[in-house]
Amino acid sequence: MSIMDKYIDKLNTLNFENMHENDFMLTWDKSNDELEAVFTIAEALRNLRENNISPKIFDSGLGISLFRDNSTRTRFSFASACNLLGLEVQDLDEGKSQIAHGETVRETANMISFMADVIGIRDDMFIGKGHTYMKNVSEYVKDGNNEGVLEQKPTLVNLQCDIDHPTQVMADTLHLINELGGIENLKGKKVAMTWAYSPSYGKPLSVPQGVIGLLTRFGMDVVLAHPEGYEVMSEVEEVAKKNAKESGGSFTKTNSMEEAFRNADVVYPKSWAPYSAMEKRTDLYAEGDKAGIDELEQELLKQNAEHMDWQCTEELMKLTNEGKAIYMHCLPADISGVSCDSGEVEASVFDRYRKSLYKEASFKPYIIAAMIFLSKIKNPQETLEKLVKESKVRHVE
Amino acid sequence: MSIMDKYIDKLNTLNFENMHENDFMLTWDKSNDELEAVFTIAEALRNLRENNISPKIFDSGLGISLFRDNSTRTRFSFASACNLLGLEVQDLDEGKSQIAHGETVRETANMISFMADVIGIRDDMFIGKGHTYMKNVSEYVKDGNNEGVLEQKPTLVNLQCDIDHPTQVMADTLHLINELGGIENLKGKKVAMTWAYSPSYGKPLSVPQGVIGLLTRFGMDVVLAHPEGYEVMSEVEEVAKKNAKESGGSFTKTNSMEEAFRNADVVYPKSWAPYSAMEKRTDLYAEGDKAGIDELEQELLKQNAEHMDWQCTEELMKLTNEGKAIYMHCLPADISGVSCDSGEVEASVFDRYRKSLYKEASFKPYIIAAMIFLSKIKNPQETLEKLVKESKVRHVE
Amino acid sequence: MSIMDKYIDKLNTLNFENMHENDFMLTWDKSNDELEAVFTIAEALRNLRENNISPKIFDSGLGISLFRDNSTRTRFSFASACNLLGLEVQDLDEGKSQIAHGETVRETANMISFMADVIGIRDDMFIGKGHTYMKNVSEYVKDGNNEGVLEQKPTLVNLQCDIDHPTQVMADTLHLINELGGIENLKGKKVAMTWAYSPSYGKPLSVPQGVIGLLTRFGMDVVLAHPEGYEVMSEVEEVAKKNAKESGGSFTKTNSMEEAFRNADVVYPKSWAPYSAMEKRTDLYAEGDKAGIDELEQELLKQNAEHMDWQCTEELMKLTNEGKAIYMHCLPADISGVSCDSGEVEASVFDRYRKSLYKEASFKPYIIAAMIFLSKIKNPQETLEKLVKESKVRHVE
Repeated sequence: MSIMDKYIDKLNTLNFENMHENDFMLTWDKSNDELEAVFTIAEALRNLRENNISPKIFDSGLGISLFRDNSTRTRFSFASACNLLGLEVQDLDEGKSQIAHGETVRETANMISFMADVIGIRDDMFIGKGHTYMKNVSEYVKDGNNEGVLEQKPTLVNLQCDIDHPTQVMADTLHLINELGGIENLKGKKVAMTWAYSPSYGKPLSVPQGVIGLLTRFGMDVVLAHPEGYEVMSEVEEVAKKNAKESGGSFTKTNSMEEAFRNADVVYPKSWAPYSAMEKRTDLYAEGDKAGIDELEQELLKQNAEHMDWQCTEELMKLTNEGKAIYMHCLPADISGVSCDSGEVEASVFDRYRKSLYKEASFKPYIIAAMIFLSKIKNPQETLEKLVKESKVRHVE
Repeated sequence: MSIMDKYIDKLNTLNFENMHENDFMLTWDKSNDELEAVFTIAEALRNLRENNISPKIFDSGLGISLFRDNSTRTRFSFASACNLLGLEVQDLDEGKSQIAHGETVRETANMISFMADVIGIRDDMFIGKGHTYMKNVSEYVKDGNNEGVLEQKPTLVNLQCDIDHPTQVMADTLHLINELGGIENLKGKKVAMTWAYSPSYGKPLSVPQGVIGLLTRFGMDVVLAHPEGYEVMSEVEEVAKKNAKESGGSFTKTNSMEEAFRNADVVYPKSWAPYSAMEKRTDLYAEGDKAGIDELEQELLKQNAEHMDWQCTEELMKLTNEGKAIYMHCLPADISGVSCDSGEVEASVFDRYRKSLYKEASFKPYIIAAMIFLSKIKNPQETLEKLVKESKVRHVE
Repeated sequence: MSIMDKYIDKLNTLNFENMHENDFMLTWDKSNDELEAVFTIAEALRNLRENNISPKIFDSGLGISLFRDNSTRTRFSFASACNLLGLEVQDLDEGKSQIAHGETVRETANMISFMADVIGIRDDMFIGKGHTYMKNVSEYVKDGNNEGVLEQKPTLVNLQCDIDHPTQVMADTLHLINELGGIENLKGKKVAMTWAYSPSYGKPLSVPQGVIGLLTRFGMDVVLAHPEGYEVMSEVEEVAKKNAKESGGSFTKTNSMEEAFRNADVVYPKSWAPYSAMEKRTDLYAEGDKAGIDELEQELLKQNAEHMDWQCTEELMKLTNEGKAIYMHCLPADISGVSCDSGEVEASVFDRYRKSLYKEASFKPYIIAAMIFLSKIKNPQETLEKLVKESKVRHVE
């Protein structure tokens, strides 16, 4: 039995028909079966590519990317995924476009989507805005399709919002599945999602929120650790609690990095801004209060500096299970003595896990491609079989 | 008889062989048959795409886009059209390139065209410049092809110049053809192309000029309305007069929005800058007179503000034929109370026509694709037949 | 015997197997056979395209471009080459990405390369940096491929570094091969690579260095001429001397433009900055000494201005072999009375050679495509045969 047959058999056991013609916004909107379908398709697409088989499903079509924040990894991951499937990426650079001139979101969403099959959006800066913006765009293009404006219905991939970062944390999880030898092996493992010190300001909360919202699905013991004042959105904590209860895992909180690390199988030390500060910043931006923003930044940097001991050190790593926890990060990390004087992680820890971290990142293009694949293909198993049968060469060797 | 056969039969009645290997610059350079060929191919391409048949005619090749002004719609329309036919868009961003360093137009035109099949240019800012620039580029790449520098001859699509905006007004017209149930039904209908108030400055004249230059071709009664001082180019008015005479329609002018709207079947209320002011601005830019430009802007805004009553209101709409004229706009519109305090159109009017306006815009990618198709394909009927026969899937479903 | 058979027969006589899965960094890293393989493949690809046969070897895949300096020609040449072979270009714009935020080169190189088959880099600004940077990137992505991070190994094309500009000078040489009727006819011809006056500052040395490092390979008599103080890298002069000795040509230096032009068959008059000044500038940039940089610029412009007589005039051209030397330039040139008051070349000389200069430039996309082809295809002869046999249409006519 070939590896591809195994993927197809796996898919046959899962119920994911609702993903067809649907968006991927938050992992907790999706069923366990749907998440597993994404992992399985991602592995299948990677396997096809490794075997020089092109999984192109589009002969033409656009993948629109709309980044409202700087991005290297996610930008290239989205471009790679689109290209693999046959879509050409077209960036909507709001600086260059007429959006800045007061155009409404509905209008723009339709005007850029006449030949768009997928829209990828990153909008993580302002609390309460990003997710809402994506939901609006999704609704508007659905209307456009219903009204005969758009020949096809573009589906959305959330490339990071204020609440969740599903392409990141799904890639993180697929990495864990590979490292631990199967999704069933995540059960009972302890994960420390901990805050870490950074000399920079205003890092988004979507990664810690995404991690606690997702890893609690698999029966893991998820500990969220941060100094007082660095709370994440309480709605997402509720999601994590509910998930843990359902999956037979646990979700706990602590203000001690040591406690989180003790006996952990997986550690994810990463800086983020306090939720309440991000709320305040959103209001200040809305009011155009530049002085207020600068003042808030100074406050936050000062607040961060009180917690410089929240660093992933060799000593802390020794507290983990046999001292061998999997160290994770969404990259780029603030590495002490490398990218900053003092930051999230000691250089020797980061270096030891560098290869593993790169592999973690390498799943993202395939996760995005799987999300697109599942939203566009009515019968993924049949399509995979057909792709293998045709075995179109990706590149002449 | 299939719908595609009908398109092919229609094309068989038209003489458009001169479009092959030719540019699309101004609609009045083209014969009625040629314009109808564009409409027919646009509909045929849209039909193919709706039926999930890929009309890709290029296996590789570049579509160069050169925008000298901000653009969302036209940029994405051009990108969509190129992608549909198999061309990859490459933007010439003059900021990034060496054009700013004194390179001549001829040299740049050739240097970017080694593998270019199409060049789309938007250059609408300066009176007397845009159209001339495009003609130069066209001539230079023709020379380059003749001299053996370029293996292929890139053809040009005017994506908006100082004189005409052919992709916009051809899309507008195709929308009218669809709304009115056939090109023959345009005859005798009254069109009000009217100026409208905008709180912004320096909007190009290419849309009103394009509209009066095109809709007079079909036997329509075209009325151009604007306050005194907002005259368009007299050369284009001459074109409109000549067209009207030949087509059995009419072209008249008025300084009253009410008069234009009375019994109109179609209204197109839209702001533009006075031609003479744009001429003056072009000179000031040439002289680098920044203070003069700022002063002119203030004058023009003041002049605009004298005509805030030129707004497309519900009351005015009631004057139109049965109160049901088709409201058109190239978008984005200045909507009173939405995108500005007071602008071109009342929000309730705009909202009522929103779906229709989006459909109007949705024709543009197909119009551009049709222009490219006709300039590149020697026997379009044969090629359409072949595309249908092969029925290559655009996207696996 | 078809022309394609001739190319294949030629390739059968050459040993270039080491090019497979390898980078193209400096011409003097490559054997004569390897250089001839590039020329032959470039001609073959051009021939295929002329005959409307698509040489696409990738069904999907990215070509990453990383420009650390403005570029029109090289940017469009790289994009054209990638598109011709089936790769989609994705620019890494360092302004937009997180590189600016202290990310290490290794990390970025891997993060952008998950689906990259080729990386093209231009980094010519700082002496001692560009080539080293490229070697690092090459090593890092090789590691990434070995470590299982990248499914494929991206190869590098040097699109201009501080030492060499191989895509430019290989295109220049292929032009000469065509003008002189064969690579064997380069032998014994005199080439004047001479400095010329420019009113601008800090032009890279990679073109003169590339020219003397490459044309000395073919038995040519290469003369490097410049005013005192405009020395190029001594390491490259050593390469030129060694090459000349091995090829039976010569490499000499002079401080007289007249002497260089006398009886020359080929002249390449072009401005560049003194090597020592560029070294100094690199240090000043490293120190962030803006005042020092401005001062250096003024010094250099003053130094340039002492040599305004170094201009390629009609009079100088008369000194060349029968007054008919081939005039070459990488473009854009500083043309006296056209792009500047006084510059590298008289307008009448430039005009007379315009068509030839454009042809010279037109080889670059094919040279780049050939470099990619040779690094990706294990058996180029077989692949060319297969491409001809399949004769996939590049564009429907």
